[in-house]
Amino acid sequence: MKVTVLGSQGAIPKVGLFSSSLILNVCSTNILIDCCEGAQFQLRKNKIKLSKIEIILISHAHGDHYFGLIGLISTFSLMKRDKKLTLFCPLSVLKILQAHLKFSNMNLGYELEMKVLNNHTIIKILENNQFSIYAFPLKHSIYTNGFLIREKEKKRKLILEKALEKNIDKIYYNKLTKKENVINNDGVEINYIDVTKPGKKPRAFAYCSDTAYFDELINYIKGVDLLYCETTFLKKDKEKAAITLHSTTLDAAKLAKKGGVKKLLIGHFSSRYDDNNDFITEVSTIFEDVIISEEGKKIEV
Amino acid sequence: MKVTVLGSQGAIPKVGLFSSSLILNVCSTNILIDCCEGAQFQLRKNKIKLSKIEIILISHAHGDHYFGLIGLISTFSLMKRDKKLTLFCPLSVLKILQAHLKFSNMNLGYELEMKVLNNHTIIKILENNQFSIYAFPLKHSIYTNGFLIREKEKKRKLILEKALEKNIDKIYYNKLTKKENVINNDGVEINYIDVTKPGKKPRAFAYCSDTAYFDELINYIKGVDLLYCETTFLKKDKEKAAITLHSTTLDAAKLAKKGGVKKLLIGHFSSRYDDNNDFITEVSTIFEDVIISEEGKKIEV
Repeated sequence: MKVTVLGSQGAIPKVGLFSSSLILNVCSTNILIDCCEGAQFQLRKNKIKLSKIEIILISHAHGDHYFGLIGLISTFSLMKRDKKLTLFCPLSVLKILQAHLKFSNMNLGYELEMKVLNNHTIIKILENNQFSIYAFPLKHSIYTNGFLIREKEKKRKLILEKALEKNIDKIYYNKLTKKENVINNDGVEINYIDVTKPGKKPRAFAYCSDTAYFDELINYIKGVDLLYCETTFLKKDKEKAAITLHSTTLDAAKLAKKGGVKKLLIGHFSSRYDDNNDFITEVSTIFEDVIISEEGKKIEV
Repeated sequence: MKVTVLGSQGAIPKVGLFSSSLILNVCSTNILIDCCEGAQFQLRKNKIKLSKIEIILISHAHGDHYFGLIGLISTFSLMKRDKKLTLFCPLSVLKILQAHLKFSNMNLGYELEMKVLNNHTIIKILENNQFSIYAFPLKHSIYTNGFLIREKEKKRKLILEKALEKNIDKIYYNKLTKKENVINNDGVEINYIDVTKPGKKPRAFAYCSDTAYFDELINYIKGVDLLYCETTFLKKDKEKAAITLHSTTLDAAKLAKKGGVKKLLIGHFSSRYDDNNDFITEVSTIFEDVIISEEGKKIEV
């Protein structure tokens, strides 16, 4: 898993910076999470192949999280995309997108599967052989989801010298990595445990855009390897955070600590602050392993 | 009059560049003409005060000309604009904007006057004491307008020493510049001609986004001080231009020459070309006073 930050800022980004968007690369699939105005510029600047984006997740219908969506979908079309694109978003964003497509008479030329999110508890929204995606409700001024992407258990790794020693035909190697016992060239059953070792530990990433802290959130993000949580405000502005249903540094830090996550990535900074390092300083008082969002930053999960 | 170029490129801008948008400053009013994705970033980068934009003109509903509109309108709101904004656009863009406002439940907090363009010949769409704006039909794959902004005749300038010599009370100076005769302190009528000289020559700017060449266009843009005309294609790609209803370098040059304009500004370059200087070279064979669009370039009209 790898995260590339496309935007670090809240609703009014500083000059040269962008609002909320990031790319999660999981098992060779690129998932775009939120899509601010200019997200497509950031994708190209960071040399992320547009054709490799297969899934887009939109958390909610505030502009700093979706205004770049129509531009990106349109650019896919201009670049003659033929691969299917799957979009998960609230009904409001779907309606807006449909208006764009209808009134500008746009013929995309590729399949755009639009799936409406209307869950009010955590649900699995996609599953394939390699990973699952879950959506879970956040607490914001409009209907908003967070997302959890969890890799499936990886195949075991063959220990070649042991497989040779046990005289196993190589056509069975794949079965062994999938925890199946096989019969060797001498007609003896070989237990996969004896010739394989565990694969890479599956990873998990959770994304909490625009939310006030609430206890139930801990269960949704528990134990992930990387948690993205917005920190629009510093602690001195906790009243503003309460009114607008956003998180402060301390809210995100508490969530990360109570959720027992490995690392915390913070972002969606209000442009009222001059020094983003203050965010790190405040979070660190509660949760140490914190990373600050910066345009183009890549984080191995 | 002053033009600031916000974007120079066609539908798929190169990295770091933008699609179609420019700002016309006329008699202290800022008019935004077309609004590509990221136009608001360009406005702020070029230190153009968002609050000073009073009028937006959208030529047509292709994304590279309007995808930045909702972001800008939303940012005005986040910045607590209270001044009225007037938008002229085709019905399709109005419908899309209405969908954004409705489904994202956006309360702008300022007056947005939306005026639909559905003319099929040149019409005056706005007039005040200082300038008039006209919309005229272009020839493109969807309903598209060009725009003509023409300053009104400027007030005459007082020749102070002559006014003093004629013993005129200074409360009448303003009347004289507005071509009114006045009575001086000796009870004698003074002709404004004798104590004033002509004001600055009124200027005119025309904007032709996304159009094939057609003869009628010459009448719409005749004699303007600055003509913006798109040149998506070099002459070698004139067949592509014909199919997509765009202009080549030679089309724009012919229009400028036949229209007797003073200067030509070209833009909306296809990203297929490596060297934008080729556009200048080709235009110059027919029309010499040509300027190339570049992000942030300012042109005094």
